Amino acid sequence: MMLLRGTFVHTPELGQLVILKDHLVSVDADGFIAHFESAISSASKSLIDSSDGHILSIPTGSFVLPTFCDLHLHAPQFLYQGNGLDLPLMQWLDKYTFKAEERIDGDPALARKVYEKLAARLIEHGTGAILLFGTIKEETNLILAQAMQSAGIRAFIGKLSMDISSRPTYVESSAAASLASAESFTQKCAELVRHLPPHRRMVEPVLTPRFVPTCSDELLKGLGKLSEERSLRVQSHMAEAEDLIRWMESERGMKDTNMFDTSNLLTPRTVQAHCTYLSDSELDHVHDTGTSIAHCPLSNVYFSARPFKLREALRSGVKVGLGTDIAGGYSVDVMSAMRQAVVVSRMRESERVTKGEKHDDSLAINWKESLYLATRGGAIALNLPLGTGAFQVGAPFDAQQINVYDLNSGSGIGQLDFFDANEVFEIGEDVVEKWWCIGDTRNRSRMWVQGDVVQPSA
Amino acid sequence: MMLLRGTFVHTPELGQLVILKDHLVSVDADGFIAHFESAISSASKSLIDSSDGHILSIPTGSFVLPTFCDLHLHAPQFLYQGNGLDLPLMQWLDKYTFKAEERIDGDPALARKVYEKLAARLIEHGTGAILLFGTIKEETNLILAQAMQSAGIRAFIGKLSMDISSRPTYVESSAAASLASAESFTQKCAELVRHLPPHRRMVEPVLTPRFVPTCSDELLKGLGKLSEERSLRVQSHMAEAEDLIRWMESERGMKDTNMFDTSNLLTPRTVQAHCTYLSDSELDHVHDTGTSIAHCPLSNVYFSARPFKLREALRSGVKVGLGTDIAGGYSVDVMSAMRQAVVVSRMRESERVTKGEKHDDSLAINWKESLYLATRGGAIALNLPLGTGAFQVGAPFDAQQINVYDLNSGSGIGQLDFFDANEVFEIGEDVVEKWWCIGDTRNRSRMWVQGDVVQPSA
Repeated sequence: MMLLRGTFVHTPELGQLVILKDHLVSVDADGFIAHFESAISSASKSLIDSSDGHILSIPTGSFVLPTFCDLHLHAPQFLYQGNGLDLPLMQWLDKYTFKAEERIDGDPALARKVYEKLAARLIEHGTGAILLFGTIKEETNLILAQAMQSAGIRAFIGKLSMDISSRPTYVESSAAASLASAESFTQKCAELVRHLPPHRRMVEPVLTPRFVPTCSDELLKGLGKLSEERSLRVQSHMAEAEDLIRWMESERGMKDTNMFDTSNLLTPRTVQAHCTYLSDSELDHVHDTGTSIAHCPLSNVYFSARPFKLREALRSGVKVGLGTDIAGGYSVDVMSAMRQAVVVSRMRESERVTKGEKHDDSLAINWKESLYLATRGGAIALNLPLGTGAFQVGAPFDAQQINVYDLNSGSGIGQLDFFDANEVFEIGEDVVEKWWCIGDTRNRSRMWVQGDVVQPSA
Repeated sequence: MMLLRGTFVHTPELGQLVILKDHLVSVDADGFIAHFESAISSASKSLIDSSDGHILSIPTGSFVLPTFCDLHLHAPQFLYQGNGLDLPLMQWLDKYTFKAEERIDGDPALARKVYEKLAARLIEHGTGAILLFGTIKEETNLILAQAMQSAGIRAFIGKLSMDISSRPTYVESSAAASLASAESFTQKCAELVRHLPPHRRMVEPVLTPRFVPTCSDELLKGLGKLSEERSLRVQSHMAEAEDLIRWMESERGMKDTNMFDTSNLLTPRTVQAHCTYLSDSELDHVHDTGTSIAHCPLSNVYFSARPFKLREALRSGVKVGLGTDIAGGYSVDVMSAMRQAVVVSRMRESERVTKGEKHDDSLAINWKESLYLATRGGAIALNLPLGTGAFQVGAPFDAQQINVYDLNSGSGIGQLDFFDANEVFEIGEDVVEKWWCIGDTRNRSRMWVQGDVVQPSA
């Protein structure tokens, strides 16, 4: 059993920031929260008394926050993060993406190097759970799964399904071959961790039709059937870009939302990235199917002409979390995604105000709402174990320690400056807000997933 | 004389990125560039031969870039950076700004602490030249000037002029008193550095009507006259926010652009922040007056319902640079301003595309254009000495060393990962682009202003 005492910060509901001072959490041997109360409650006191002093004390000037969830990241594209972003989506895929993914599939040593480094960067940035797109090749995705399991990150691994491609050498040979490969991967990925108790299995396979243009009708329907039969997770991209929409209309005569829908790929186990071209009624339909959305604000700025209707999606009750979309977005940092989500939403609201449109609630989200999306919202969208993304008894202890002020030196940590700080430094809303604005990896000293400390190793 | 040999990167013209490999710069005793050529030219060779080996070698994996210019930052607001940003402009000024500035004016020790820390943060972020708003009180602005001169940063210091205020205790007593105070400060600020040769004088006073709502007609006209008589620089905020525009119409019956114009405050010595509510014809007029604009993209997202017409301004030939607008923007980092400028401009272009409007050139700027704005564009907007913001003979050597890859450890520096790097690591456009996307203060090892190394000391 592990005991931690200090300040805890979380967002149990959208827009609600809760700061719990001098609280005690106990984490059981399986990594679940067994107790969470004020440290001076009688139950806490007896835990402290029986602990023989083995309590991890979170120092003044630090707080514990749930880990971040990243709902959309292309692991192989980490290879060329921050390059070529000025191109339109379909051109960018041709010039950079398919080539890089083919290269990773052809070089297991490179794949291992890239994926281990990615895991280290995720830990550095406080990402404890992640939904990943991989490559076509089964073996490469098993390397990815191993890298994440070893690092201790909750990772949902998507072997790409694509029987259509603009790159003749980077494609699966038929719908049948693609389906067989998807099924085989899901089994081998599960086998990787079968020897572990369920709560120590960090990785899980995800059916991953890349996006509709790369999947035949037969493949989509086959994946929908497989998902239903085996209760498998699904992820893809949906309604992302203007050129994609036009392509779909001319080639398939149908919207990709309809294609996913009729193939049974909109399910409570599905996360769809982007969804920038959905109407309000389509958002309602997404909600009705139980599908979650990965909102990738930075990537949308580069690859989608429309910003995501975040407020409308939240209003419809759609489960939404944030995605970094490496390398469509250039930053692996969920904090950057939070800030960008606020920027994009404020610009949407501003445009409405400028037009003179009046509505009851603002389209803008505030920083607290973005923090919810990055933690609790993401955990709900991913169907993580009960209570993940907030601190409550029964939830796995997935947390990060954030240090903002050092009492010994009397100075702020990283980019944070506090000119009014003194010996009774208090973690108030203003302090968390300042961290949200200018905090970075230097403010993060520790991360736990399922109660275990995870540390960058690459 | 100082000799540096290595890779230099600059943007002499908008949109043009120039990477100069194995070049040699010599900097004379006064801090000006005396020679800049390929290191293997005959002139370079003879300089190297006569140098007795005293050459600073910029290692493989590093490059030298001009320092950043920040055209708009409120020094006293650094006190509460990253707080309260959800409020509308006029409310935010009342609740946070005036209070904080009054406090700084009442506590010289606090002012010194805040301003020295600010100088250290600017150096850490590669900002070599800055246009600053201070507070009302003369002495506090002299503390600010001293802090910047000691740090070695080119700083243009604005003692605020404001004879109207919503805070009764934070205002100047009359237009006459305000003008006398402005004049007195400009003299004392100049006296601070009079003992130094002109090129070592890093600080200079700037007439600073806060914005029109805080200045009587008499004060504005008096400042215009003073600026003309003494050739003094001017800065203010112009056409920033909806509530400001409405207030101006009802209280003064005139736009603030007209108020500045008729008071002779739009001059080639003027930088106006924001200007988000200017029409194309007003931008043309701004150009005709020689006025520069400080584009503050992050701050605009929070406090202006409209994004700045950046492309239109550039097309009109207006001199534009970037501003962080601490604390209206939360980040002191010009790199963050560059990234945000691209985001905002892309969203403007996307909106136009969505509406089906067609134009010859895009409203979006790319990362290279943003780098120009942050360096050369800013230097031109500030009328810095000839050639500042690029590397050319006769220009002051204002530069920052950026390290992206360490040859010894074989790994990227800070957030940068290079999976294809080897012993012949080349600084190409892709490397500079990656740094632009995910680089941070950890990639900066050194900054020079006027040939002198400046280092954080606070």
